[in-house]
Amino acid sequence: MVSALNGAQALLRTLADAGVRACFTNPGTSEMHFVAALDSEARMRAVLALFEGVASGAADGYARMAGSPAATLLHLGPGLGNGLANLHNARKAHVPVLNIVGDHATTHARYDTPLQSDIETVARNVSRWVRRTQSVQAIGADAAEAIGAAIGPPGQVATLILPADVSWSQGATPAPPPAPPAPRVPDADAIEALARTLAGAKRSALLLGGGALLKPALRAAARAAAACGAQLLCEVFPTRMQRGAGLPAPQRLAYLPELASTQLSGLQHLVLVQAPAPVSFFAYPGRSGELVPAGCAVHELADHSQDATAALEALADALGAPSAAPPTAVAPRVSAPTRGPLSAESVCAIIGAMLPEGAIISDESQTSGVALGPATAGGPPHDLLALTGGAIGQGLPVALGAAVACPDRPVLALEADGSALYTIQSLWTMAREQLDVTVIIFRNDAYAILELELQRVGARGAHSKARAQFDLSRPELDFVALAAGLGVPGRRARTVEELTPALSWALGEPGPHLIEAVVPSVFSPARLRAMPYGLRALSALPRPLAGALRRRLYPG
Amino acid sequence: MVSALNGAQALLRTLADAGVRACFTNPGTSEMHFVAALDSEARMRAVLALFEGVASGAADGYARMAGSPAATLLHLGPGLGNGLANLHNARKAHVPVLNIVGDHATTHARYDTPLQSDIETVARNVSRWVRRTQSVQAIGADAAEAIGAAIGPPGQVATLILPADVSWSQGATPAPPPAPPAPRVPDADAIEALARTLAGAKRSALLLGGGALLKPALRAAARAAAACGAQLLCEVFPTRMQRGAGLPAPQRLAYLPELASTQLSGLQHLVLVQAPAPVSFFAYPGRSGELVPAGCAVHELADHSQDATAALEALADALGAPSAAPPTAVAPRVSAPTRGPLSAESVCAIIGAMLPEGAIISDESQTSGVALGPATAGGPPHDLLALTGGAIGQGLPVALGAAVACPDRPVLALEADGSALYTIQSLWTMAREQLDVTVIIFRNDAYAILELELQRVGARGAHSKARAQFDLSRPELDFVALAAGLGVPGRRARTVEELTPALSWALGEPGPHLIEAVVPSVFSPARLRAMPYGLRALSALPRPLAGALRRRLYPG
Repeated sequence: MVSALNGAQALLRTLADAGVRACFTNPGTSEMHFVAALDSEARMRAVLALFEGVASGAADGYARMAGSPAATLLHLGPGLGNGLANLHNARKAHVPVLNIVGDHATTHARYDTPLQSDIETVARNVSRWVRRTQSVQAIGADAAEAIGAAIGPPGQVATLILPADVSWSQGATPAPPPAPPAPRVPDADAIEALARTLAGAKRSALLLGGGALLKPALRAAARAAAACGAQLLCEVFPTRMQRGAGLPAPQRLAYLPELASTQLSGLQHLVLVQAPAPVSFFAYPGRSGELVPAGCAVHELADHSQDATAALEALADALGAPSAAPPTAVAPRVSAPTRGPLSAESVCAIIGAMLPEGAIISDESQTSGVALGPATAGGPPHDLLALTGGAIGQGLPVALGAAVACPDRPVLALEADGSALYTIQSLWTMAREQLDVTVIIFRNDAYAILELELQRVGARGAHSKARAQFDLSRPELDFVALAAGLGVPGRRARTVEELTPALSWALGEPGPHLIEAVVPSVFSPARLRAMPYGLRALSALPRPLAGALRRRLYPG
Repeated sequence: MVSALNGAQALLRTLADAGVRACFTNPGTSEMHFVAALDSEARMRAVLALFEGVASGAADGYARMAGSPAATLLHLGPGLGNGLANLHNARKAHVPVLNIVGDHATTHARYDTPLQSDIETVARNVSRWVRRTQSVQAIGADAAEAIGAAIGPPGQVATLILPADVSWSQGATPAPPPAPPAPRVPDADAIEALARTLAGAKRSALLLGGGALLKPALRAAARAAAACGAQLLCEVFPTRMQRGAGLPAPQRLAYLPELASTQLSGLQHLVLVQAPAPVSFFAYPGRSGELVPAGCAVHELADHSQDATAALEALADALGAPSAAPPTAVAPRVSAPTRGPLSAESVCAIIGAMLPEGAIISDESQTSGVALGPATAGGPPHDLLALTGGAIGQGLPVALGAAVACPDRPVLALEADGSALYTIQSLWTMAREQLDVTVIIFRNDAYAILELELQRVGARGAHSKARAQFDLSRPELDFVALAAGLGVPGRRARTVEELTPALSWALGEPGPHLIEAVVPSVFSPARLRAMPYGLRALSALPRPLAGALRRRLYPG
């Protein structure tokens, strides 16, 4: 069969046939034939971004909500580099993403032109599956294999490097979709043995991550936990967690190692379900990175290549749990404050009180979001998407991608000011696509977490060069102006009285809106001097954790 | 000798001792001890950026003007990824840059925490010199070696990966600066032979790039060219070119291959001086990437590891040229238009007419800047810094770095709207450091060059998905608002009457200013339909080139 398609057309058809229906793009000249081919594939939505980190983060957010991968279209090595931080986040969370990275024509590489570079070296940082497609005959099959690699399980970032001449040459044939993966079934004997261990244990916990934080797995986990008295924990940064409305609510592990090790202390058995064993995010002088207490046995029930729900159901059955999930205490809906200056806590409370049903929360609020969990626990059903790989600048693009995947659901992007500025260009695409995203910027004029970290390092001095590295107040940022510059209407709120109507406005109208919420930094030197604010911020946490943090961070 | 310094302190002292006096930073937790150590090294200026691409591009701009490298401080693999595009640009231009990339403590890597990744894979894309320093004993010597590698010659991007525990551990010793490189002297016999060849040639040209575009080399090149009748050409994207005020003015090769091959046609001998042989930036179906005409001999007089000025002087001497450079025709200063709507050409003319003495122009104006060269040729002495590696988003950071290196000189950043948005965060650092940068945004609401490229691909259709990929008009961008959001005062100009006073205002006050100049896209479909505008835009070019472009691009 002689095909009348060029490589780009066959690639797009292969993607669409396999269910890839969105491509987040920032193209250049070497991608021109791919761009031209978009008009030949009506099923593919092309969403333009002004920066590649927006495209890669949007593909991540899309896949988290759609459950299937989106594609990115990136321009050679530098374009992939710009997308790398958010691809890192996707990789760490096993979220499937398919990168199409355009490259020079195969005949052109030898000239070492300005944009020539070794794309594979960059791609390897985020992708185990990397291939430079070599011919128009191979492009269909390579694309199908790339999609299969991205889907997994485990999901991963797959990078297909597409030379311009493969894209433009005629004679390509689309390939059929990759075979759906056979889900790996957990080992029944191992589960029986684990059930016996847990049944006889005094203090045990199930640590849920990945797909174990979606409804069916949460219900199965609750069955198992109730049957053996285990605690339910959630990984620090969940990829997608379904919450609210009486769903089982595992306690989320804290980011600060002092807090997390308190949460884990006394455990005899820790069962991992698509979650890594808890370790400190960063290393600190004289401290171990391990957070699991000595003597606690760690068991892995399911990894990211296995079916977490099936594993949890099997564990619950082996524990003799009733087939219905136990009733879960419905957390009360928070009542919002009605007046006063804003604080990180009051913003979280107002969000909790006004959260619409079916909301998707992309949370990159960092230190300002400490109180978000408790404030939204009693809310209507919603999804929480967190910063999975620690590379900041993820929250806005993830919100964008989630909104493309779920056009009928309201999306909230909760952003720290520092983090928001890595991928602020996201706002323009939200406006262009008229996505229903409410962006709330917690503006505390600092890289606040670094204020805390510097204090732990022991550096002193109020006006030092060092401390200036975390100060975002000179000049003052104006996110309402930034939003206006990128086509998104915005408002500023300094008080509860201003924030409440602003949030009503943003949630009540279709399309994107931004609210800049001016809040004091939780960890700023001024706040810490005006004790006990630094500790009051911790009051949103369960009491023993706050106490532990107080003792360890501020022994004086 | 027992040192009382920790690794970070010894590193900073080694850098400062070797003359590295600026560090463009975007730190995180793993860099906290480096940040704390900034207070121990008064000679090091730390310039905070809100995004790593700003830091890496600023280090490039700094080194181009200072002639010695600056450092960057980046946060693990994702931070390096965000900086990669502008490091690519520096690599392609042989500009020395020293990356300090913080990493987890050596003891922490085994936990595969969220920010863990293979940093080397990313670094290899831009750095031949990559080292993870392994101990506090090694950090001083590693730092000195990194600086030496960055300086070269040839200059390069060197990446030193700094584990947190090496940074915080005591007992480090600063290392002495690397030995200054012995400049490689060009081979005298080869130069004699080349002189004989050129003396007998009818049509020859010297193609100048790299350091051959600075005054001493330009004057030597002019001597040699006058002695043998050779033409002086300049590479497409000069790293740093000194211009104006009667300096020899080599003709810059055009970006479009149709134009460049016209410039080169008929040559018998082409002599490369720190410039690569001209090739097409991108490949096109059915066209060769080679631009050097068949039968033209290519000679390399000096590469980036050699002394270009010495080589050109030797060539001139071998040609028997008089020791004084020949008089150069001083181009007349352009007269600015006084009224009417703005066009890319009128903006360039106004810039040319108002250019202050000693200005540094960072040019990323893309299609809007076609007329910039002729418009500024007759201006006062100035430096031109171009987009060396083709990775857009370089212009604003390079302007920032140049302003840090040259605090007493006015800097102009001429930016295409699309390109500006990759690293728009640069504006905040310009305001924070109160740098004297005048940013002019050519707002044509399009990735205009891609409009042209899509037409060459042959895609048609006015409202196609494909064409929408280049349309930046929905929503409309507002750079005055963006500037305000980042602390920079701005104005918008739609007419000559508005631009002229706006530019006076920006150049007349210290500190950064932004002017959004609203211009029609040179290559937009509307402009091309309303012929002969598309051709009129070419009128700024030498006549035969414009004619050649017309015939080749628009044969109808």
